Amino acid sequence: MSIIECIPNVSEGRRTDVVESIASAIRSVPGVRLLDYSSDAAHNRSVFTLAGDAGSLKEAVLAIYDRAIAAIDLRAHSGEHPRLGAVDVVPFVPIEGVTMEDCVALARDVAAAVASEFAVPVYLYEDAASNPARKNLEDIRRGEFEGLAAKMKTDGWAPDFGPNAPHPTAGASVVGARMPLIAYNINLNTNRLDVAKKIAAAIRQSSGGFRHVKAAGFELKDRGIVQVSMNLTNYEKTPIFRVFETVKREAERYGVQILESEIVGLIPAAALNATAEYYLRIAGFNAAQILENKLRATGGDDEASRSERISTTKQRG
Amino acid sequence: MSIIECIPNVSEGRRTDVVESIASAIRSVPGVRLLDYSSDAAHNRSVFTLAGDAGSLKEAVLAIYDRAIAAIDLRAHSGEHPRLGAVDVVPFVPIEGVTMEDCVALARDVAAAVASEFAVPVYLYEDAASNPARKNLEDIRRGEFEGLAAKMKTDGWAPDFGPNAPHPTAGASVVGARMPLIAYNINLNTNRLDVAKKIAAAIRQSSGGFRHVKAAGFELKDRGIVQVSMNLTNYEKTPIFRVFETVKREAERYGVQILESEIVGLIPAAALNATAEYYLRIAGFNAAQILENKLRATGGDDEASRSERISTTKQRG
Repeated sequence: MSIIECIPNVSEGRRTDVVESIASAIRSVPGVRLLDYSSDAAHNRSVFTLAGDAGSLKEAVLAIYDRAIAAIDLRAHSGEHPRLGAVDVVPFVPIEGVTMEDCVALARDVAAAVASEFAVPVYLYEDAASNPARKNLEDIRRGEFEGLAAKMKTDGWAPDFGPNAPHPTAGASVVGARMPLIAYNINLNTNRLDVAKKIAAAIRQSSGGFRHVKAAGFELKDRGIVQVSMNLTNYEKTPIFRVFETVKREAERYGVQILESEIVGLIPAAALNATAEYYLRIAGFNAAQILENKLRATGGDDEASRSERISTTKQRG
Repeated sequence: MSIIECIPNVSEGRRTDVVESIASAIRSVPGVRLLDYSSDAAHNRSVFTLAGDAGSLKEAVLAIYDRAIAAIDLRAHSGEHPRLGAVDVVPFVPIEGVTMEDCVALARDVAAAVASEFAVPVYLYEDAASNPARKNLEDIRRGEFEGLAAKMKTDGWAPDFGPNAPHPTAGASVVGARMPLIAYNINLNTNRLDVAKKIAAAIRQSSGGFRHVKAAGFELKDRGIVQVSMNLTNYEKTPIFRVFETVKREAERYGVQILESEIVGLIPAAALNATAEYYLRIAGFNAAQILENKLRATGGDDEASRSERISTTKQRG
C-alpha cells in the first residue's frame, strides 16, 4: 500500500460556500481521504489535508484547481498570509510505501497538468525544486501576487511549467515535495522576548543554526512567558530531540528554563520513536518491535515464523 | 475492532513436530493470527504469540491444550525453566478496543473450559487472581510440577477451577490477564557484577523498588560488562523513562555510566510515546496527533471535519 499526504493551501478563508465546495470536490474522488481542513479568516486562507495514492491525489488536486479558479479572484483578495495564487501551495509528502523521488515525480506531473489545463504558471519547490535558489517557499513567494508579473520577467524567475505571466485571477502556484513538517513550540519560564529571539536565531538555519529548522521568538502575553516557535522541516536529518536539547542549553545561558513544549497538529511516529531511542540509549531498536506495528502487519498465517530472536526467558507468562 | 494478545507458554522446546503441530492448530482457527513462536531447547519450552478477539482466542487456546496434553508428559519433562504444567502459563493482554476487565473475564471463561474439558486444575494470576497471594506467577509456580500434589493440599492452594489434584501428565495451568510486559535491559560500562546486582535490588519491587519492576543483575562476560535485566509489568504505572533515570542515578553513585539499553521483543507504542512526551516536556499531547494514527483511522469521508484547532500559520506549504 502506498500513502502520500498532500496539503493544498487555498487563498480563501472567509466564504464558507467556496471552502465547502472544494471539500466536497475532494471527497468525490475515489481513493482520496480528506483528513482535515481548516480556514483562517484573518489569513483568508484554507488548508486541506488529503491522503491517497499518486493517481487519486492528482485527480483531487486538479479538482481543487477547478473549483478554486472559478471562485477566487486574487485581484480582490486580501489577508495577512502571503500568497501568490488562488491555489497557493501544493506539497506532496511521502508517508508509507513511497519514496521522496515518487513524490517529486508526482509534483512534476501535477504541475504540468495544472499548467496545461488551467494556464496557471507553476514553480516547483523543496525537494522538487529545479534549482537551489527556488527550494524555499518564502523566496518564491516574495513579492506576492501583486509583484508577480514583474518578478516573472526578471532573471531566474521564469516558471517551471506554464505561461511566463501570471494567470489574471489565479496568479501562480507553488507545487513540490517535502518531508512531513513538524510544527513545534518550546515555552520558556521567562517573559524576556529577547531570550526567545536569541534562541530562535541560534537554532534556525537562516542565521547559522540547524539545516532543517525555521524559528522565531514570540511573546505569549496572556501567560507572561515567551515561546520559541519552530517548523522542523526534516525530522530525520535534524531530529526533534537535538533541537530540544540545544534550546535547553541555550536557555540555561540566560538563567532560563524550558517550561514545556507543544506539538501543533501532527507528528510522524518515527520522530517520537527516535526521541525515545535517543534518551533511553536503546541499541539496535527496530520499528518492527513496536507491538502495534506487529499486530497491524498485513497478511495472515504466512507471517507467523519461527523466531529464535526473542528469548523465551524474557517473554514468559 | 477488538484485539487481545495471548502468549501461551508450553512445556516443549525440543520436539519440533510437537511445536509445529501446536502452531498449525493455532493457524487453523479463524480470527486468530499467530504472530510469532519460538522454542528454547535448554528451557524445553515454547512461547506462542497470538492475537485475535475473545471468542477466537478461546478456541485457539483450547486447541493448544488438546495438542499439548496429547503429546507432553510432565513426569518425563526436564528443562531449566520452572513449570507446573504441559500448558504452563496463558496470559491475556488488552491491546486495542478492550479493557483489562474484558481480559479478566476471558481468562475466567477459558480457565473454566480448560478445567471441564481436560480435567486440568487452573490457577488464575495477575489481574485475574482470585486473591492477592496468588497474583505473582512465581508464587504459584514455586515447587513446580514435582511439588504440585503436596502444595495443592496445603491451605490456600486449592485451584480456582478444576480438580484439587494435578492432572497426572499435564499438571496444572496458570491463566490470567495482565498488561503488556516490556523486557528491558540496561547495560553498564563496568564489569562489576555487584553494581548491577545492587541497582537491580534498588529498582525492583521485591526489595523495595518500583511496584511494576522485576530485575536482576547479570554479567555479559564476552563483552566485559554487566547488565540490569528487567521485566516492566505495567508501563503505565511504572514508566520506562522513570526506571531508566533511576538506574542512571543509582549507577552514578558507583561512578558507573549507562552504556546502552535494549528492548527485547515487543514494546507498545504508548510506552515509547510517553517517553518522548516526558523528555521533551510536551504539554497536552494526544495520540491522535500521531500522523500514522490519523491516516489509519477507520472510516471514510465522514471523518473529515472542519478543524479550527490546527492553525493555518503552522501548517502552511
